[in-house]
Amino acid sequence: MANGRLFLIPSPLGDHDPAEVMPRQVLERIKSVRRYVVEETRTARRFLSAAGLKGHIGELEFRELNEHTRPEEVEALLALFTAPDGSPTDVGLISEAGLPAVADPGAALVALCHQRGIQVVPLVGPSSLMLALMASGLNGQSFAFRGYLPAKNEDRKKAIRDIEAQSAKYDQTEIFIETPYRNDSMMADLLMVLKPTTRLCVAADITNPGETIITKTVKRWRQEPVSIGRRPCVFLLLA
Amino acid sequence: MANGRLFLIPSPLGDHDPAEVMPRQVLERIKSVRRYVVEETRTARRFLSAAGLKGHIGELEFRELNEHTRPEEVEALLALFTAPDGSPTDVGLISEAGLPAVADPGAALVALCHQRGIQVVPLVGPSSLMLALMASGLNGQSFAFRGYLPAKNEDRKKAIRDIEAQSAKYDQTEIFIETPYRNDSMMADLLMVLKPTTRLCVAADITNPGETIITKTVKRWRQEPVSIGRRPCVFLLLA
Repeated sequence: MANGRLFLIPSPLGDHDPAEVMPRQVLERIKSVRRYVVEETRTARRFLSAAGLKGHIGELEFRELNEHTRPEEVEALLALFTAPDGSPTDVGLISEAGLPAVADPGAALVALCHQRGIQVVPLVGPSSLMLALMASGLNGQSFAFRGYLPAKNEDRKKAIRDIEAQSAKYDQTEIFIETPYRNDSMMADLLMVLKPTTRLCVAADITNPGETIITKTVKRWRQEPVSIGRRPCVFLLLA
Repeated sequence: MANGRLFLIPSPLGDHDPAEVMPRQVLERIKSVRRYVVEETRTARRFLSAAGLKGHIGELEFRELNEHTRPEEVEALLALFTAPDGSPTDVGLISEAGLPAVADPGAALVALCHQRGIQVVPLVGPSSLMLALMASGLNGQSFAFRGYLPAKNEDRKKAIRDIEAQSAKYDQTEIFIETPYRNDSMMADLLMVLKPTTRLCVAADITNPGETIITKTVKRWRQEPVSIGRRPCVFLLLA
């Protein structure tokens, strides 16, 4: 039995026309791939429809891979790479927003593909982390992504102190995210805990209307505080 | 005097048609920007010409920002954001390949723009680091980019041990690059120094013909070694 390939298909960070932020290699590829592993079917259908498959969504096959998927269910997804007649079948992996297998559970499928010798092909698209990093003006030659910091107050303050120390030790930009409804309490903790000379970048609504990317020292943020509100936001700091 | 904006304009990772990997927002934006800060003028002209400006390169203004640029010369680039008549002028920043201001000296100009209140707008394009990370199947929820490791033999082995320990401590994917002619000696050192259970990904010629992205344990790499040769390559490991 021959295997197809796994295409890692990015999706937009907002509700705009996918062609704005997707290169031709993506818009062409989705015309040939018929089987998709997606974080949420509803969002993936909406994206593929807007990206040029309007009227053809019914011809596609969707399977979900998200935080509820058990390891043996990921294993079962490998059957998608072969058609009933044994011929190789390509599969697309799509996350909720941005690059699949970066800050989502898709990496488990990619890892399995490597174990089984299935070719993995990443396609170009929007990465909120990289767009924030390049626009921050902070150190792009050394950086670390920390995912979500702890949600509880004292744990979070300790985590902020820890990553500021790491940043100073390695001259490394620290990147992290927060669930939107906690953005402003995160910002308050950052301004309370960080040193005045540390540079802090707030990057909200990247690639969307109202995109705001501002880097200032903590001292200046304290003088000119902002409300971020419930917008998707990436935080970056360099001590 | 009013200021224009700084657009961060990605470029392809290889010699193919830029439209393959550049979304519409990039191909449209370069039609309106007339002033560019680039890592090397010759490469930037070739990219802009291939991206749709063939026959119009003579109308553009280029200034270089690279490892030879002194801080006071970066400061002087701010004059580009205002036309002689005082009207605001947009500027594009382009690196040798991929995303500007990530693994190149462009971040110095971005940082200055933030200090002067000049708006910075990142555009979507190929990032060898993110494409390698998503296709590696390694941890995408926590990762660090280390740039180049030391070139000298014993220093490099120590650096490899250090980042393997960091990877284990933080469950963090470690990403690093090497100058192409040293790829194979880097690979030899990695296979000598790393633990057999550590997973190592070699991602070469990303987005180009011959793209090779393979993740295996160090134990399996030792059984099936490869020659990478002088191809652009990203290394990733997870202990």
